Amino acid sequence: MIFYDCPTAPSPRRARMFIAEKGLKIETRDIDLRNDEHRGAAFLAINPRATVPVLVTEGGQVLSENIAIATYLEAEFPTPPLLGEGAEEKAAVAMWNAICEAQGGMSIAEALRNSSPAMKGRALPGHLDYAQIPELAARGLVKIDVFFETLEARLQESPWLASGRFTMADITGFVFCDFARVVRKRIPETSEATQSWFAAIKQRPSAGL
Amino acid sequence: MIFYDCPTAPSPRRARMFIAEKGLKIETRDIDLRNDEHRGAAFLAINPRATVPVLVTEGGQVLSENIAIATYLEAEFPTPPLLGEGAEEKAAVAMWNAICEAQGGMSIAEALRNSSPAMKGRALPGHLDYAQIPELAARGLVKIDVFFETLEARLQESPWLASGRFTMADITGFVFCDFARVVRKRIPETSEATQSWFAAIKQRPSAGL
Repeated sequence: MIFYDCPTAPSPRRARMFIAEKGLKIETRDIDLRNDEHRGAAFLAINPRATVPVLVTEGGQVLSENIAIATYLEAEFPTPPLLGEGAEEKAAVAMWNAICEAQGGMSIAEALRNSSPAMKGRALPGHLDYAQIPELAARGLVKIDVFFETLEARLQESPWLASGRFTMADITGFVFCDFARVVRKRIPETSEATQSWFAAIKQRPSAGL
Repeated sequence: MIFYDCPTAPSPRRARMFIAEKGLKIETRDIDLRNDEHRGAAFLAINPRATVPVLVTEGGQVLSENIAIATYLEAEFPTPPLLGEGAEEKAAVAMWNAICEAQGGMSIAEALRNSSPAMKGRALPGHLDYAQIPELAARGLVKIDVFFETLEARLQESPWLASGRFTMADITGFVFCDFARVVRKRIPETSEATQSWFAAIKQRPSAGL
């Protein structure tokens, strides 16, 4: 297998953490997003949508979405289970992962990509140019606050986002909480449950990669 | 189980089709989005994020995202498999489902919710008000064309989006192709593979519900 990564971006970090939590060592190639390597012919031949992470499986299948990479690795390497066991836990992982993507990941991407001078013309990831929309950046900042509220309400009733143990949903939530710093947002100090949860994940070896 | 549905919206239609393809009969309650029933106290007590679809399981678990509802039902009722079998097919379903959500569903929602007079102040689903951003509506229309291009490229090489058979990815793609009509977008006539695929799904009983 080959894992296409980028050390500065949150989406590949999610896959990197997932791989590390599975205890896997996968041949990794860094793609230099800042210098547009993802839009060059070599990488477009692998993923025409020009996004990372990508996992190319032993069988040559090209997986270009975090949920696809996680689904593949969970099926091939079930231990430890990171997508849950049994219908209820599996569903809870899927739900909280999706909520963190929509409320967290999307909001930070909107705030960053529609405001950063370095991302002018690059308001969306991928191979196509989209102009920045300043109002969307402002809306993203508001939505990040909603994301933090959602997490705190959930973590006041559950030690981990999906269930009683660490899962992919926690990876997704953690990565986006951490990445919010790029738009000067942090977990509110009053969000005590979220602060504790974040600190616990930060100590895991996978978080330091 | 109780399924909270809405006959006019695309997200609950995805769950409705999934349930029908599984051959399940689940007690269903329609939520009247146009009259803000989803933002009333009764429904907020069920789903504080104020979105449909929602599936409340026998055990009382509240599942508020399509991927969570599908994951739950697939685990409880494995036949016919709609999320794939084996690592490669499961991963392909997850990937194409995510691509259809991001390129199709998001784009249509952006185009509709940021332009329709009826959705003023409701640029995002849920319980919070967000102002419309006209530039986002325009960008959504451009992205719908990209979605149609992505589908056509894929369907020229594969009879169904994820694999050799009908899966959840096809439900998601179909529902969004159909819903694009609300912003006056249709599958291009030149997209012959997509046209055939769409026509085949439209004949399934689940598509008429």
